[in-house]
Amino acid sequence: MARYDFASDNTAPAAPEAMQAVLEANSGFTAGYGGDTVTARAADLIRQLLDADAEVRFVASGTAANAIALAALCQPFEAVLAHEHAHAATDETGAPRFFGHGLGMIPLPGADGRIDGAALDAALAQPENGHVQSPGALSLTNATEYGAVYATQGLSGLIGAAKAKGAGIHLDGARIFNAAAAGFDVVAIRPLGVDIAVIGGTKAGMPPTEALVIFDRPLARRLDARLKQSGQLPSKGRFYAAPFIGMLRDGAVLRHAAHANAMAQRLAQATPFKLTHPVEANGVFVEMDEATHRRLDAAGWKANRVFDDSVRFMCSWATTPEAVDDLVEALRQVR
Amino acid sequence: MARYDFASDNTAPAAPEAMQAVLEANSGFTAGYGGDTVTARAADLIRQLLDADAEVRFVASGTAANAIALAALCQPFEAVLAHEHAHAATDETGAPRFFGHGLGMIPLPGADGRIDGAALDAALAQPENGHVQSPGALSLTNATEYGAVYATQGLSGLIGAAKAKGAGIHLDGARIFNAAAAGFDVVAIRPLGVDIAVIGGTKAGMPPTEALVIFDRPLARRLDARLKQSGQLPSKGRFYAAPFIGMLRDGAVLRHAAHANAMAQRLAQATPFKLTHPVEANGVFVEMDEATHRRLDAAGWKANRVFDDSVRFMCSWATTPEAVDDLVEALRQVR
Amino acid sequence: MARYDFASDNTAPAAPEAMQAVLEANSGFTAGYGGDTVTARAADLIRQLLDADAEVRFVASGTAANAIALAALCQPFEAVLAHEHAHAATDETGAPRFFGHGLGMIPLPGADGRIDGAALDAALAQPENGHVQSPGALSLTNATEYGAVYATQGLSGLIGAAKAKGAGIHLDGARIFNAAAAGFDVVAIRPLGVDIAVIGGTKAGMPPTEALVIFDRPLARRLDARLKQSGQLPSKGRFYAAPFIGMLRDGAVLRHAAHANAMAQRLAQATPFKLTHPVEANGVFVEMDEATHRRLDAAGWKANRVFDDSVRFMCSWATTPEAVDDLVEALRQVR
Amino acid sequence: MARYDFASDNTAPAAPEAMQAVLEANSGFTAGYGGDTVTARAADLIRQLLDADAEVRFVASGTAANAIALAALCQPFEAVLAHEHAHAATDETGAPRFFGHGLGMIPLPGADGRIDGAALDAALAQPENGHVQSPGALSLTNATEYGAVYATQGLSGLIGAAKAKGAGIHLDGARIFNAAAAGFDVVAIRPLGVDIAVIGGTKAGMPPTEALVIFDRPLARRLDARLKQSGQLPSKGRFYAAPFIGMLRDGAVLRHAAHANAMAQRLAQATPFKLTHPVEANGVFVEMDEATHRRLDAAGWKANRVFDDSVRFMCSWATTPEAVDDLVEALRQVR
Repeated sequence: MARYDFASDNTAPAAPEAMQAVLEANSGFTAGYGGDTVTARAADLIRQLLDADAEVRFVASGTAANAIALAALCQPFEAVLAHEHAHAATDETGAPRFFGHGLGMIPLPGADGRIDGAALDAALAQPENGHVQSPGALSLTNATEYGAVYATQGLSGLIGAAKAKGAGIHLDGARIFNAAAAGFDVVAIRPLGVDIAVIGGTKAGMPPTEALVIFDRPLARRLDARLKQSGQLPSKGRFYAAPFIGMLRDGAVLRHAAHANAMAQRLAQATPFKLTHPVEANGVFVEMDEATHRRLDAAGWKANRVFDDSVRFMCSWATTPEAVDDLVEALRQVR
Repeated sequence: MARYDFASDNTAPAAPEAMQAVLEANSGFTAGYGGDTVTARAADLIRQLLDADAEVRFVASGTAANAIALAALCQPFEAVLAHEHAHAATDETGAPRFFGHGLGMIPLPGADGRIDGAALDAALAQPENGHVQSPGALSLTNATEYGAVYATQGLSGLIGAAKAKGAGIHLDGARIFNAAAAGFDVVAIRPLGVDIAVIGGTKAGMPPTEALVIFDRPLARRLDARLKQSGQLPSKGRFYAAPFIGMLRDGAVLRHAAHANAMAQRLAQATPFKLTHPVEANGVFVEMDEATHRRLDAAGWKANRVFDDSVRFMCSWATTPEAVDDLVEALRQVR
Repeated sequence: MARYDFASDNTAPAAPEAMQAVLEANSGFTAGYGGDTVTARAADLIRQLLDADAEVRFVASGTAANAIALAALCQPFEAVLAHEHAHAATDETGAPRFFGHGLGMIPLPGADGRIDGAALDAALAQPENGHVQSPGALSLTNATEYGAVYATQGLSGLIGAAKAKGAGIHLDGARIFNAAAAGFDVVAIRPLGVDIAVIGGTKAGMPPTEALVIFDRPLARRLDARLKQSGQLPSKGRFYAAPFIGMLRDGAVLRHAAHANAMAQRLAQATPFKLTHPVEANGVFVEMDEATHRRLDAAGWKANRVFDDSVRFMCSWATTPEAVDDLVEALRQVR
Repeated sequence: MARYDFASDNTAPAAPEAMQAVLEANSGFTAGYGGDTVTARAADLIRQLLDADAEVRFVASGTAANAIALAALCQPFEAVLAHEHAHAATDETGAPRFFGHGLGMIPLPGADGRIDGAALDAALAQPENGHVQSPGALSLTNATEYGAVYATQGLSGLIGAAKAKGAGIHLDGARIFNAAAAGFDVVAIRPLGVDIAVIGGTKAGMPPTEALVIFDRPLARRLDARLKQSGQLPSKGRFYAAPFIGMLRDGAVLRHAAHANAMAQRLAQATPFKLTHPVEANGVFVEMDEATHRRLDAAGWKANRVFDDSVRFMCSWATTPEAVDDLVEALRQVR
């Protein structure tokens, strides 16, 4: 039987706190399209979390939320600076260029999914001409695709360099709570200069939902129209807002993220395979040859080979210590 | 206090059968992106319902589902034939032309939201030239925006005319269960020649979910990539599939739709305002001047003025006879 | 034998002054992509003509130039206010929504192709919500599609109303020289508040070329990249710039436009058919039934039936008095 | 004084045979939008040249023609296989993804601008999934960006591999006449399986014009509408068709291309710098450090550094032996 415990952090069910809030919200008639009190309260909780004024919307898809954010920051004839293995660059079937009407991607290298500062500087220093898509936005991911966590200072340097050249700043926070549980201060997001952030609910243990957070009010002009046209203005908005209430109101989301991170540490310490990245959040990346990977798969454990050729194991709020131990046992056997 | 009971059929909470299935599905780890058994079972139920082979996907947004369908059927330099007051033409902030990269709309008249056959014929008979967007698809809505239900024969004529000119056929089934409860045979959809149908879950009483049903396999080529790029390939697919299981497995969805239709009849019979359309499904449309509408609003009852200047009252699975009677009382007072 | 003398103002050959300048420019090697001295000089002549600072580019297509202008002024989730029979709204196969990624059109009525002020005010007064595309730009055409010429004051009112709501202003000047020859002061364009104008060369008697004039420098950010991505940054730019030099350096373009207008007057005075619009520029519009139109066509005279059901005769720099007289004779015979 | 003789093959003026045909065509009134006899004759000449049935249109821009071709062959959620340094991949500001609504590019390596067969096979063998843009089209360039010429057999292998996977085939023929003059048989294009070719006029010595050649009739459905929407249906079509008549009717285009190639050979044999690619067509690529390049530039000779870090010198129909000798002298001095 196939086990998906570590295939991704979205193979887990939703956490009880999130579901409880959905059930609570599912009562009575309410205004549609985000005009309801559940949505209003969830937006307040997001603003509290980030200690910042912002337009907040709850949407169904992280892919769409990120793509819409990039389209808002970047003209079609401009390009997004992103880590070469960022989700937006590699794993979203070109969604940013679909929503962004042809915008380009400038892939940047960097260890552990963090953008290398010198590479960013070099890209920003490229002379402009009409034949290339010059940088319109910088996209950052925290925690990174390789389970690393940016320090505030690291982000500050990247953001400063990009803003100095007029680029807008996007933060893909699909795993922002894992970053937070690892020490990243989410209150720093706005002062750092981020223009639009996507605060991920789905991978944090909620049913599908993402918070799109626009700090710059001019960027939010006619935002509901933008979202509606993009298929991301839910009529029954409470279903996307309520999970955030359940997970934010008493801090469950951070407890769950800390648990996921701890499970990753447990796995990292016990895996017989060589780690390819430091384990700072909820992902464990190892060196594993194809034949071994196939044996692991045959043994029922699903795991993905990712862009740097590592095999990836993701932990979530629902990962149990027993599952980690079972996996470790399986890893030993297939080795 | 504002009452949203009749503002739309999406102001209602989700029905217990749908929520129960979500809770059942929310257990254990499972493959992401629609590779799970919940999704497989729900797709089977849709195929059973329609008695047809089809690719079925569950997505978050009806706006997106319809726009993606139209983009699949129609080139950017072609146009969609649709009722002039169809949702896709009037109420989706241009989503079809966003997803369809500039496709056009050819608005057609017709009583009660049904496309007039002669008007369709005239549009199809227009000479083609390079300066106009000629018809690439016909979009039908059943039940219509004005609460009418197409008979199979009526659809047959429209579809035949459009197909004879090479147009693809799209069915917006946001309220297909209300149509079904009113006598429309959903098993006829495929034989009628529909290429892509959107079977609406949200307005039928589910948490947000829509089934995208593609009968033509060639149109479904690389469908997951199409959906992913469009922000409509949910990672936690079971949350969009489960509600259909809960509502289809024992016929709840039709019972609920029949209830909604019955509530509309109850309202239609008691309203002191003149009906502007026959009440065949779950909507009641009346003639009401602005001042009266404002009084009704001030009395707490939310209702929308729609494109033909009617004021609209929508009933849903959750509409109670008491609410209908309360509304009727209020209508009498504001009159 | 078919005669195209009056079918459009683009059925004429290019005027000798334009061709002479092309031949002069076609000498020696030069920088590509608009970096040449011919382009620089033509841009200076345009700025002189308009007595305004502006970014000026020469492109191949008026359809593209107008669509690019609208895409620069209007977000995809916004709409362009335009006369219901404006070229951009009716005759460009949806080019504005293709280049503008789904932007909408709000068609406005108005006599003789001029937008009606009250209709514009009503459109601007529509309440905004997320379900509709609200106005992002106003598109004006002078001379209008029906051969009328806006007075400066008329434009001023329309532009003021639109700008007060935050809309950008686009001027389609495909026949701006005909308007100028009829008394419209092109120096007023910038003070009136136009943000982007397209100064038409093709219909004025040049080989294909249009000047895209962007008065607002921020709108011109990375303009060459915008044009290159849109297929409108010619490598051999001098071929699009030179015709403007030939036609502007000694005023030939206005002489030719005045001639075209005079030929329209000659036709208007002699036509046995009822005029449907006042003849202010180079077009003559008449009432003509289908059978008569077919007889005229059979007699060899090509003319188009346009959106208001008039039959249109366009005059150009190349229209001869003899051709007008021949046409009048033919009109008398088919009547 | 700056000399642009070798900066590109589009810095040259248009050849006398092309201009002569333009002047001949610029006479009398004619149907617009490609309905004229000049356009019909030029299309016949193209079909004769290629010995194939095809829809032929003449457009202003090679960037647009190639992007439109790719958009016709490839869905937005698919990708174009192209040489990593192909013009479409590197030098068109993302035009293919703008016209193609977000289509992707899969860059392939290969010596001298020819796509490496093994790399193509590997790309075609990639497993498909919904998260990546799988190949929808193969784009080939002949002569290549690095002045090499594909042999028929080489193309055959690449095309066969791509077609076996369902990809459409595009040929960017911006320098097809240089390839032909070097021995490539243009009559082989259709039998090889190319679906859409762009036959370049501009770089071959014409004023701006490109022939879009669609061999597959179904791909040409509503082609004029496609072109009009994309801003590439010229009203005065004769200006884009005539140059091909002038250059094709007596073989001038091949004579000019042979001359350009010969000039490249003359330069290649005399340059004191190391060649980085074999000189098979009209481009010469050399190794040159930055400081030397700057000295050359200061000496007035314009030349571009290209993607593989070579410095490029392009010859054209207008390149004189004296200019080659002058350049060689300058190269010796700056060395």
